[in-house]
Amino acid sequence: MVRSQSNIRVTIQYDGTNFNGYELQPGKRTVRAELEGALHKLFQEKTKLISASRTDAGVHALGQVVNFSLKNNIQPDKIVPALNSVLPADIRVIMAEAVSPEFNSRFGAKKKEYEYLIYNGQACPPHLRGIVWLIKPKLDLGAMRQAAKLLVGKQDFASFCAAHSDDTDFVRTIHSFVISSAKGGSLVIWSGVGFPVIRFRVVGNGFLYKMVRNMVGTLVEAGLGQIKAADVKSILEAKDRKLAGRTAPAQGLCLVKINY
Amino acid sequence: MVRSQSNIRVTIQYDGTNFNGYELQPGKRTVRAELEGALHKLFQEKTKLISASRTDAGVHALGQVVNFSLKNNIQPDKIVPALNSVLPADIRVIMAEAVSPEFNSRFGAKKKEYEYLIYNGQACPPHLRGIVWLIKPKLDLGAMRQAAKLLVGKQDFASFCAAHSDDTDFVRTIHSFVISSAKGGSLVIWSGVGFPVIRFRVVGNGFLYKMVRNMVGTLVEAGLGQIKAADVKSILEAKDRKLAGRTAPAQGLCLVKINY
Repeated sequence: MVRSQSNIRVTIQYDGTNFNGYELQPGKRTVRAELEGALHKLFQEKTKLISASRTDAGVHALGQVVNFSLKNNIQPDKIVPALNSVLPADIRVIMAEAVSPEFNSRFGAKKKEYEYLIYNGQACPPHLRGIVWLIKPKLDLGAMRQAAKLLVGKQDFASFCAAHSDDTDFVRTIHSFVISSAKGGSLVIWSGVGFPVIRFRVVGNGFLYKMVRNMVGTLVEAGLGQIKAADVKSILEAKDRKLAGRTAPAQGLCLVKINY
Repeated sequence: MVRSQSNIRVTIQYDGTNFNGYELQPGKRTVRAELEGALHKLFQEKTKLISASRTDAGVHALGQVVNFSLKNNIQPDKIVPALNSVLPADIRVIMAEAVSPEFNSRFGAKKKEYEYLIYNGQACPPHLRGIVWLIKPKLDLGAMRQAAKLLVGKQDFASFCAAHSDDTDFVRTIHSFVISSAKGGSLVIWSGVGFPVIRFRVVGNGFLYKMVRNMVGTLVEAGLGQIKAADVKSILEAKDRKLAGRTAPAQGLCLVKINY
């Protein structure tokens, strides 16, 4: 008799600082290796994980979705505390459920939401140093918003794809690209002290390799007056990576949510 | 001719995680040792730092105030970028000014504000693990607020002073003790995801050794129903450390502001 298998879907959060990204890499500490190790430790099963996104080294996640098949018939609500009891503190499982055998976290993803944080001030607060990009000159929000509007829609994003990518189809749809900030500081950890953080929230049906970081890097160039907002249009049309701005550093980026 | 000396006041922030506290300790990494080292590197002067508070190992600061005399006649507004260029990223100087020779950051402090963060949920989000105390059972806010009220006022806090303290006068004034929380999560780093954090904000004219952490530990016992809120009154009256609750862990505590 063949034991039945369940398709388990988990939602995980991680602090990307001490990981060489999500995907397995020989000899390196990765999120996937930690998860597979934890599952093996708990259930003595070799599981093959499928994930919604393969985040780069240093990139964070609040809502990464991963699925895998499991022979062990543990109740799904027991999986969260069990995994958290063996995982390191920089990864937490926040939800687990049994889903239909057809569910695939990678190919089923309809929309992905990323947020990029920039600290726009003179000295980066110590507690934010692992999650923001420090930009000292005052950024022009209006110019960045104008530029971001040009990125919205179904377009060929070849100019924003990193050089060493496996992608062959560069067309993606950006549903929205919202840049927000607040007078008095938009990020509050301890009450009464607002940190001047600018949020770049982008929602799309998918993203090319380093596409979000390349878009943010280009928007920052618009915010610094190094390019004109309208230049984003010609950068897109050229389909040439050399024209886009620098790649924003990994630590400012967070995968916030996957929609199915 | 004797060179004149300036009394320099700086406001600093630090992530306490990798420090053995503020105060010098032979062979250990401390905030004060890093600051004195940075001043020596920049100005070749041996400075003796005075601080508003000597925070314990693991405790954070957003508004620690330190003063020192400096022979070098650098303009105060140049001190901030100069110090930050040589300090490690877990300490930042956010303000520097020349003050009157009489200013003493320790003895001049009128009010000190601390905030303690508790994550009241099942799994501690990876990005908060260095700044909160994780408490899994649901805490009773009403009971904790009732208990906190009894701590306000000018009282003898011997019961909340750590055993190995040099303090001899245990009378302190707590001006306010506010416990706040918000439906949907009171702490937001990436928009749309609120973390269920409870904030304990306490303002006093001064605090005994580990007093804030002992008060929070006792309030948590009230929040868990292990003691009655009214028990705080008899704990205070007993003037006996053994009666108060456990000491809340250091990483949840932050020195937010000093008032002069």
